[in-house]
Amino acid sequence: MKPYIEMSAAELKEELDALKAEYRKLQALGMSLNMSRGVPCKDQLDLSMAMMDVLDSSSDLTCEDGTDCRNYGQLSGIEEARELLGDMMENNPKDIMIYGNSSLNVMFDTVSRCWTHGVMGNTPWCRLPEVKFLCPVPGYDRHFAITEYFGITMLPVPMTPTGPNMDIVEKMVAEDEAIKGIWCVPKYSNPQGISYSDETVRRFARLEPAAPDFRIFWDNAYGMHHLYDHQQDYLIEILAECKRAGNPDMVYKFASTSKITFPGSGIAALATSPNNMEDFLNHMRRQTIGYDKVNQLRHVRFFGDIHGMVEHMRKHADIIRPKFEAVEDTLERDLGQLNIGTWTKPLGGYFIMFDSLPGCAKDIVARCKKAGVQMTPAGATWPYGKDPNDSNIRIAPTFPSLPDLQNAMDIFTLCVRISSAKKILAEKE
Amino acid sequence: MKPYIEMSAAELKEELDALKAEYRKLQALGMSLNMSRGVPCKDQLDLSMAMMDVLDSSSDLTCEDGTDCRNYGQLSGIEEARELLGDMMENNPKDIMIYGNSSLNVMFDTVSRCWTHGVMGNTPWCRLPEVKFLCPVPGYDRHFAITEYFGITMLPVPMTPTGPNMDIVEKMVAEDEAIKGIWCVPKYSNPQGISYSDETVRRFARLEPAAPDFRIFWDNAYGMHHLYDHQQDYLIEILAECKRAGNPDMVYKFASTSKITFPGSGIAALATSPNNMEDFLNHMRRQTIGYDKVNQLRHVRFFGDIHGMVEHMRKHADIIRPKFEAVEDTLERDLGQLNIGTWTKPLGGYFIMFDSLPGCAKDIVARCKKAGVQMTPAGATWPYGKDPNDSNIRIAPTFPSLPDLQNAMDIFTLCVRISSAKKILAEKE
Repeated sequence: MKPYIEMSAAELKEELDALKAEYRKLQALGMSLNMSRGVPCKDQLDLSMAMMDVLDSSSDLTCEDGTDCRNYGQLSGIEEARELLGDMMENNPKDIMIYGNSSLNVMFDTVSRCWTHGVMGNTPWCRLPEVKFLCPVPGYDRHFAITEYFGITMLPVPMTPTGPNMDIVEKMVAEDEAIKGIWCVPKYSNPQGISYSDETVRRFARLEPAAPDFRIFWDNAYGMHHLYDHQQDYLIEILAECKRAGNPDMVYKFASTSKITFPGSGIAALATSPNNMEDFLNHMRRQTIGYDKVNQLRHVRFFGDIHGMVEHMRKHADIIRPKFEAVEDTLERDLGQLNIGTWTKPLGGYFIMFDSLPGCAKDIVARCKKAGVQMTPAGATWPYGKDPNDSNIRIAPTFPSLPDLQNAMDIFTLCVRISSAKKILAEKE
Repeated sequence: MKPYIEMSAAELKEELDALKAEYRKLQALGMSLNMSRGVPCKDQLDLSMAMMDVLDSSSDLTCEDGTDCRNYGQLSGIEEARELLGDMMENNPKDIMIYGNSSLNVMFDTVSRCWTHGVMGNTPWCRLPEVKFLCPVPGYDRHFAITEYFGITMLPVPMTPTGPNMDIVEKMVAEDEAIKGIWCVPKYSNPQGISYSDETVRRFARLEPAAPDFRIFWDNAYGMHHLYDHQQDYLIEILAECKRAGNPDMVYKFASTSKITFPGSGIAALATSPNNMEDFLNHMRRQTIGYDKVNQLRHVRFFGDIHGMVEHMRKHADIIRPKFEAVEDTLERDLGQLNIGTWTKPLGGYFIMFDSLPGCAKDIVARCKKAGVQMTPAGATWPYGKDPNDSNIRIAPTFPSLPDLQNAMDIFTLCVRISSAKKILAEKE
């Protein structure tokens, strides 16, 4: 089949009729599938059920240093967990703090702390006339929701295949003291699934921000989430790089086991410099007596060490790799020759990013919904939910079963074709 | 023995010499005991070890409503947990939200939310020239630490045997719009162990604060923590009472299972009105995707229902009751006739409050420390750590073993006697 743009109006009309007939057929199947979020499927959750056995009533819940995990205390987390998450995050355990069940919560609390008390002695952000964040786009909607909620002005920065456009980032942070942060998902990014290049990370570490309290919010959510054994992205470790560049305090690095064990019942962690750590602890000391150490111990005893976690992640990959491949195969099969969209082919993470013709994304997502397939809302990948091109759609392949996903993608590509054909036809007429 | 005040200087000197000799003897034992915090002892923690068995790899972690506890979602907590904690807090499950592992964290986050975003559409507290809180004294140091950290002016209100002095509370909140909250531990209070009378609770519910965003921070930490089966304090349920009084939104009520199962690995809860709930959820929706539902389910399946929890609390009481009695017996034995201090005899909770002669508390605590017994720092029960009378000392009997506690109390009463004798002697000379 030839690209739509090369078709005559008559050919396009004929195509559209055929597509609509097909759509009605698929709609009649009465599908009801929510693939709007990056959520593990049941088979993935089952992988961690053995974690429910590692502690029982006969277990000694004492840490190596003698801490009774059942009682109060240990604000920074138990040593064993700091070591395991240190290995996971490629940081020294002493630069790691273990939190509760959600790294998003840690990020929110971090913005909130900067807002109420400021960063390392600088003016609290709530006392400033304006606070701005750089938001690489497309990006993660829950990040944007936090900054929007605090009334922080969000400035989009275009993503490239190697990370955010660093010329723009460097220039903006150097010129504007109101810019206090940037949201980054540096590895297998949400939604592209790309990883920042060595040069990007090095340029991040060497930023010269006008604001002394500028911080990089480095959400390394998918550090362990490879799809393949050998073809894997490698990300330079940002904390070490910042230290080398003489900017040791510039980064807050976040991670969790949410998509490793159980989302919502995992453990979250922060890695940062000693100065920042002190800043965090000064706040946390008032906020809580400590996080759930029994669950920290449960995770440590389940994995044993980082090798155990790597082996565990391989099992996740075996479950979700076919899903990513099914999405990519279907996109290629149905759209490969039509020049009506592009998409990423990530080696890890939870998402594939699709870019339609400008002005089609909302229409495509709406059509999918009418046929029973709920995608991430169009626009969600942009600050304030506003995608200026209306072209970006996030595909989250992990949650549906493979047959459901195949049906959903058949519907998706069909909707892309209908929407694109209509648009091109309208332009031709 | 006659009261110190009735002794001659010579008699006091003789007494002091004898006491000092005794002190040196006890000091030589080389005790090292930390009884500064209200912390359960090992035997109490062992009571909940069976909770480690209720979920294993063969368990179905699905809720009654079909929610898979292992995955994302359910921001307000699982229904079963809301029901159990609803029974525990004497509130309708629909007015309950289940959080993570710490009610202190929920309180901190609540003050932080009021600070950054305000209460139900009112001006965020960070935008006001001054924010004040009433602090019934003596009170809980971690409450005071939160309000101090946010720069909130803390105004002490004297406690009486029936709760805070309500004449003062009523007058102050009615006259000063800057007063936005009051910290309360209404049942088996920290540190007195007393419970607010029916009249006190009713007057709380009928407050007429000048500030529309005034909230009662009702930390019902010890609702289930009776020492006796029959002699128990009863506290009127504040939410229902506020509703009746036409002030449905005036209270945030907090509780947790920290001193029921494992401190740090329990579940926390909030009970409040639908309007407040909406306010909280609007914030939490950005803060997290949800709390640890597996741990919520674990608690529900461990207790079964509220009767299971009541039975469980009876076992706690059996362990700590003898400790409370040992403290009271020793105080009575050594100080009962000397008129140099008063103390409370609570029917529940975690503390006994001791009041020394004015100006002696710091000295007593310092003397205890030198003999190896670490008490809660004198002053901790007052905002900013400043007890104007220097008389208040919190005794936390639960953590030490009974023999250790007995030794510690021997040292404590000895230090009280030394300190008091010195003070009275100095006044006589």
